[in-house]
Amino acid sequence: MSVHASQPARTDAEVGDVAAYMIRLGQAARAAATHMRRAVTGDKNRALLAMADRLQSRRSDIIAANAADLARGRDNGLEPALLDRLALNDARLDAMVEGLQQVAALPDLVGEIEGMHFRPSGIQVGQMRVPLGVIGIIYESRPNVTLEAASLCLKSGNACILRGGSEARDSNSAIAACIREGLREAGLPEDAVQVVATTDRAAVGQLIAMPEYVDVIIPRGGKSLIERISREARVPVVKHLDGVCHVYIDATADAEKALAIAVNAKTHRYGTCNTMETLLVDAPVAEKLLPQLAAAYAEHGVELRGCERTRAILAGVVAASEEDWYAEYLAPVLALRVVDGIEAAIEHIERYGSHHTDAIVTENYGLARRFMAEVDSSSVMVNTSTRFADGFEYGLGAEIGISTDKLHARGPVGLEGLTTRKYVVLGDGQVRQ
Amino acid sequence: MSVHASQPARTDAEVGDVAAYMIRLGQAARAAATHMRRAVTGDKNRALLAMADRLQSRRSDIIAANAADLARGRDNGLEPALLDRLALNDARLDAMVEGLQQVAALPDLVGEIEGMHFRPSGIQVGQMRVPLGVIGIIYESRPNVTLEAASLCLKSGNACILRGGSEARDSNSAIAACIREGLREAGLPEDAVQVVATTDRAAVGQLIAMPEYVDVIIPRGGKSLIERISREARVPVVKHLDGVCHVYIDATADAEKALAIAVNAKTHRYGTCNTMETLLVDAPVAEKLLPQLAAAYAEHGVELRGCERTRAILAGVVAASEEDWYAEYLAPVLALRVVDGIEAAIEHIERYGSHHTDAIVTENYGLARRFMAEVDSSSVMVNTSTRFADGFEYGLGAEIGISTDKLHARGPVGLEGLTTRKYVVLGDGQVRQ
Repeated sequence: MSVHASQPARTDAEVGDVAAYMIRLGQAARAAATHMRRAVTGDKNRALLAMADRLQSRRSDIIAANAADLARGRDNGLEPALLDRLALNDARLDAMVEGLQQVAALPDLVGEIEGMHFRPSGIQVGQMRVPLGVIGIIYESRPNVTLEAASLCLKSGNACILRGGSEARDSNSAIAACIREGLREAGLPEDAVQVVATTDRAAVGQLIAMPEYVDVIIPRGGKSLIERISREARVPVVKHLDGVCHVYIDATADAEKALAIAVNAKTHRYGTCNTMETLLVDAPVAEKLLPQLAAAYAEHGVELRGCERTRAILAGVVAASEEDWYAEYLAPVLALRVVDGIEAAIEHIERYGSHHTDAIVTENYGLARRFMAEVDSSSVMVNTSTRFADGFEYGLGAEIGISTDKLHARGPVGLEGLTTRKYVVLGDGQVRQ
Repeated sequence: MSVHASQPARTDAEVGDVAAYMIRLGQAARAAATHMRRAVTGDKNRALLAMADRLQSRRSDIIAANAADLARGRDNGLEPALLDRLALNDARLDAMVEGLQQVAALPDLVGEIEGMHFRPSGIQVGQMRVPLGVIGIIYESRPNVTLEAASLCLKSGNACILRGGSEARDSNSAIAACIREGLREAGLPEDAVQVVATTDRAAVGQLIAMPEYVDVIIPRGGKSLIERISREARVPVVKHLDGVCHVYIDATADAEKALAIAVNAKTHRYGTCNTMETLLVDAPVAEKLLPQLAAAYAEHGVELRGCERTRAILAGVVAASEEDWYAEYLAPVLALRVVDGIEAAIEHIERYGSHHTDAIVTENYGLARRFMAEVDSSSVMVNTSTRFADGFEYGLGAEIGISTDKLHARGPVGLEGLTTRKYVVLGDGQVRQ
């Protein structure tokens, strides 16, 4: 079997007709997926470590390519935050190399058989974990996503088609070269990881409309991008929409824990999806806790927007509007509401939340149990910060994203989310009566 | 909390505007799902057994309603096969009652926590099995599906909206009354199971386009219905497309097992999705086995369509066309092909199969392992009949359908496929550093 493919297109001229180009990528990915499904763990790990070596030896090429992206970005008036996400430096390259080594060290789930048992008919039935097949990943400016996504798809035995942002074109191309060489060195098909060479938007439209070549789409980016892809895709999408996360401080809460958690969940990082956006405080402790919370938030420069009962306790707090309860601020802003007990807290979370991550702070056993059972979010927490909702913190070893979907993968998605299970049935000639 | 709803609409006049009616059903289902998520196992089982009691005591009403459907069906020129699927009699009602008792006896998966473990940060992380929420089921003439679907959704803690075929309108309505009474008796919300009262096709269009009220759609019926629903749905669909199943008889196969399996996989039932449609025979044993197979199939009146190499051995066999390799006959017809070893067999299955169920017959350890690993189908079998691909045969205790999708549920779908897992995180005040 030949695992060497022709050199991929690099320019729009080489790409030619975008739809036809994407179909070629799809066909090549499907063929590569057949090889990848059979790839042994050792070869996959060898490819990952070879990529890490190339990343090291090509460091200056990658930084130079990135410099070209950054120069173009500055010329195009890219915002400083985006330029920062785009930038690669020695520290970020070191992290990328380390990431590859970590993925190589993760256990290979492919081929795991669970639940094998005999049935009265004499057949033996279980389920084997297998790759999904071809994964399309659509993302924005951060070029390290190219490597992260490629490494996770590779380790889980999938082929992938990566479509990064146009801002990172040169960086992605330089990284893609390292990936292909790593695959080749390990004797794996180079087309197992293909980076879309054109920045034409039609490429995305085609990628999400080829169920014959692509098994699942994972979009990473802003909500509007993800909503558009979900609406238009003809391929299943594993998606992350928004994170309107809550902490509910119950009357029985330990005040010290409550303060620490409420402050950490809001101020540890503002722009992340697992950051708390609304804090709910049980009425009996509002008078005592709200002033302490307000003082702590004031230290961090967090703007508070409160309900009427909050404002009766905290003078000068801006009134929260209905939109505030739905808001994912991603900023040093917090909505505050005084509620009457867990029932009202759960009702609020159900009505305004995004089913991402919600936490209760309580010392009451029954309320902790009830919150865990009744709150319908991808992560439900007791006495800890919503900021822990993360693949690394959960011990997945890696994270391709956080799913707010209910089907297939929910919450942080690691290698397992890139696989599926098929039934395996062993017999000795049994037939059905 | 009130769990008693107003009497549901029963006629098109009571339904009024179809889109508005479906939205009302969706809202009621969403509210019921919140209650069902919290329902304890005992109440769910009590509801199932109360339904069984009602089914017993209302037996004559149900048979009378079914007689009205049958009479209308005959007037409308319904085919005999469809009339047979529509008919309810004492034996079928007994089976329905028994089905309810079996579902009541199944373990409740809701709330199961798996993998709870401590992380270096001190938090404890695991995953809890929880209901999906609201399930929309669209099906055709068999009225017993109404009860099966309702019982599985109920046991798994979901609310459901059931849209049956117009042919079974009166039967479904009589069964729905038993379901509602069973729910009421157990103190569960009656809207946990709603049967769409209108036969207007616009109801389906609305049902599959309300992601705010419906979490997943499960269509059961012909391929064209399912393809249309998948194309148009704005809600995730768990679907079963076609079953182009293969048996590959390897040169090392035990001839007796091979014959028994090849005959059973084709002739046990012709109209089922797990029936073999193409038989692949390894070249070294073709000359010996094909005449024996042909004789066995002749006894069952199975028409054979063969490749050139098959026809060189079996005179008088019709030539298979390219379409035959793709065909799901659902009839006493079999495509036959002589192949050169496992590589060619897997290539054939990959190219023409539907990734449903495929089996190898072999005594060779390495080939069995290879077939299991490399064939990308929802069920992969060694030395047994494809007819075993079934929720009951696999020990799921029940089956809502067979999924040919890769994401979420693959193969026979039982209670587990109607649930999802959320992360639960327990702490003692931990915050992220």
